[in-house]
Amino acid sequence: MRDVAIIGAGMTKFGKFLDRSMKDLTREAVDGALGSAGIDKSKLEAAVVGNAAAGLITGQECIRGQVVLREMGIGGIPIINTENACASSSTAFHMAWLYVASGMYDVALAVGLEKLYHEDKRRSFAAIGAAVDVEWAAQMQAAMAAAKGNGERGEQPAPAEGAGEKRSMFMDFYAAFARQHMQRYGTTKEQFGRIAVKNHYHGSLNPHAQYREVYTLEDVLNSPLVAEPLTRLMCSPIGDGAAAAILCSAEKAKQFTTKPVHVLASCVGSGSDHAPGEPGITERISQQAYKQAGVGPEELSVIELHDASAPAELVLYEELGLCGPGEGGRLIDARATYFDGPVPVNTSGGLISKGHPIGATGVAQIYEVFTQLRGEAGDRQVANPRVGLTENGGGMVKGEAAALAVHIFSV
Amino acid sequence: MRDVAIIGAGMTKFGKFLDRSMKDLTREAVDGALGSAGIDKSKLEAAVVGNAAAGLITGQECIRGQVVLREMGIGGIPIINTENACASSSTAFHMAWLYVASGMYDVALAVGLEKLYHEDKRRSFAAIGAAVDVEWAAQMQAAMAAAKGNGERGEQPAPAEGAGEKRSMFMDFYAAFARQHMQRYGTTKEQFGRIAVKNHYHGSLNPHAQYREVYTLEDVLNSPLVAEPLTRLMCSPIGDGAAAAILCSAEKAKQFTTKPVHVLASCVGSGSDHAPGEPGITERISQQAYKQAGVGPEELSVIELHDASAPAELVLYEELGLCGPGEGGRLIDARATYFDGPVPVNTSGGLISKGHPIGATGVAQIYEVFTQLRGEAGDRQVANPRVGLTENGGGMVKGEAAALAVHIFSV
Repeated sequence: MRDVAIIGAGMTKFGKFLDRSMKDLTREAVDGALGSAGIDKSKLEAAVVGNAAAGLITGQECIRGQVVLREMGIGGIPIINTENACASSSTAFHMAWLYVASGMYDVALAVGLEKLYHEDKRRSFAAIGAAVDVEWAAQMQAAMAAAKGNGERGEQPAPAEGAGEKRSMFMDFYAAFARQHMQRYGTTKEQFGRIAVKNHYHGSLNPHAQYREVYTLEDVLNSPLVAEPLTRLMCSPIGDGAAAAILCSAEKAKQFTTKPVHVLASCVGSGSDHAPGEPGITERISQQAYKQAGVGPEELSVIELHDASAPAELVLYEELGLCGPGEGGRLIDARATYFDGPVPVNTSGGLISKGHPIGATGVAQIYEVFTQLRGEAGDRQVANPRVGLTENGGGMVKGEAAALAVHIFSV
Repeated sequence: MRDVAIIGAGMTKFGKFLDRSMKDLTREAVDGALGSAGIDKSKLEAAVVGNAAAGLITGQECIRGQVVLREMGIGGIPIINTENACASSSTAFHMAWLYVASGMYDVALAVGLEKLYHEDKRRSFAAIGAAVDVEWAAQMQAAMAAAKGNGERGEQPAPAEGAGEKRSMFMDFYAAFARQHMQRYGTTKEQFGRIAVKNHYHGSLNPHAQYREVYTLEDVLNSPLVAEPLTRLMCSPIGDGAAAAILCSAEKAKQFTTKPVHVLASCVGSGSDHAPGEPGITERISQQAYKQAGVGPEELSVIELHDASAPAELVLYEELGLCGPGEGGRLIDARATYFDGPVPVNTSGGLISKGHPIGATGVAQIYEVFTQLRGEAGDRQVANPRVGLTENGGGMVKGEAAALAVHIFSV
């Protein structure tokens, strides 16, 4: 495999954009990436486009990548549409990396895009709910309704208000997971709250973030309860947006930039049956990535991880090896994961504050690490960054992420 | 890039299977491929799953591959979902090929699957209609309705009965295309009819075909008109089904089989703006494939191509270089493309007779060429096959296929 570098990246602000189309969002992100790379679109030799839910939200069930890219004059080249729920565009990045690393193409575009907001909010909920085995979910709901002795079989529960107007069954899962961690390690609701405080603070420093308010721990703990111990400000919101990155063989990258960001590892995996105590998907894939990159977690300067909820971030500290098992709470208590701390995590604001347009999230995480490693992150710039990692999970099957991607980068 | 071989392939019969789930269809196809390769599923190192329309038909908008494969105990490995409309699974095959050709993995699974039949037939039409730019299609329909001075803006026309109970806007496109060819080259409706007769005959010899009746030219020409000159028996039907192939590095393939089928070329591209007279997408991608494989069209022993309608097959004879421009009619008049002729095309029955569960079609074409090249095609076996080609188109943007994949194989 050849050495691959990112030579440009772009993204839209994340937010609620009922009046902007997928084409419009994509154009802004891709133009941003091309501008950042200083190349014309005619240099692109392949494109991989990640999106999760446009079929349900916009009716564009097929050829989403072709529709959005032809609109801006990109065609002829291979355009591959990939989907892996919330990990759709880290998967797209992985395939674009494979195109370049294999030697097949020199310059490839990876795009992540999503429109989750819809005037009929039930469509947004349905889109997020489609990231599990829907047959299984319908059976679960029917069984729960039957057990309660009320409601018809298969009845859909009314969506409760959660973070940023949503609550999916994922939040119930995260809440249960958080309670387990509290019981096992004495982790506290306050510690989860501190992660949310940090990410909202980081988001306030990021012009692309959907939410830019600063909150106190009290604000977070007193925001509406989603499912104990999760409050609304600990949960990622629904969002619209797009992000793009341009990958290039390291050899050719020298023609375009003096600041390439090298891809040291690109690993994707899926959930599996494993005994309790055996490594879960995150440990497994991140270990692969550390091995591929030849770096350990102690060498990371900047980390973007999948904080769909604050407890997820805390547990990921441990699963990614940023601290030992059960030590996640202490890491945030020490403010170690602030952008100016020793282990900066989610300097973009993360999913909680930057937002989570699911198909756009993976490449947006990569955008942040790219920007940090190039020293272009402005008010939230990490000092002397050298190595960055992104971790992006997608969907759920049998209680584990259906897909997970870990990438490691360096200057 | 390394030499890659197919070591096993499997598929379901195509048809109307309202009572069979995607999981059920996938299991049959993947078990068939594993059995054909003589390997256990634990040998699989990656999987790429192509599907086009399950979001609209089954509600499983996300992580389709993970849902169907975990059900049969396949997990842990990278599972990538790809979509490229009717070319979804040839694209999946291409990405699986890339995994193995690049040296990243030794054994990869490619799956194509689709359920198009739904009790509410409007859903099936919507799924097929989503393979164009849906924003553009809505504008076209509104403009047409406004021009007629009747109907409301954006009104959906009622679906007419077409081939196998469907008619999509694709058939109107194919009909217009056919009329152009007739005008330009004197091609006749009878010649299109003869292609349908051939493919139905081939389908009658294929146990996996959705339709197995033999028809005369009269039957074809007298079947209900879809759009002049297309009659119903010249059009591909709606269908359900799945197909799977197992790719392996040629080096390692020797451990598993004495009959590997080598992948000589794997090319995917998208439509582009080009002047009239300049090569279209099929010429462009097939020329790339011929170059990659180091073979010319005159060396092909067996060809599976995207006969979504009979005129498409005739035009593809010319675009793939099986004959000169305008000579497609003469090729079928001479019965050259029958399985026992000099240029066997669509020996499986093609999309017209074998059926066209859109996301399954690409790998099903590869299944046919694999089966022919191994000499295992029974009553429809081509004599002394050496080199095979598959051509699979998907969706439409600005009057050209949105995606197109050409693969070339050899024993």
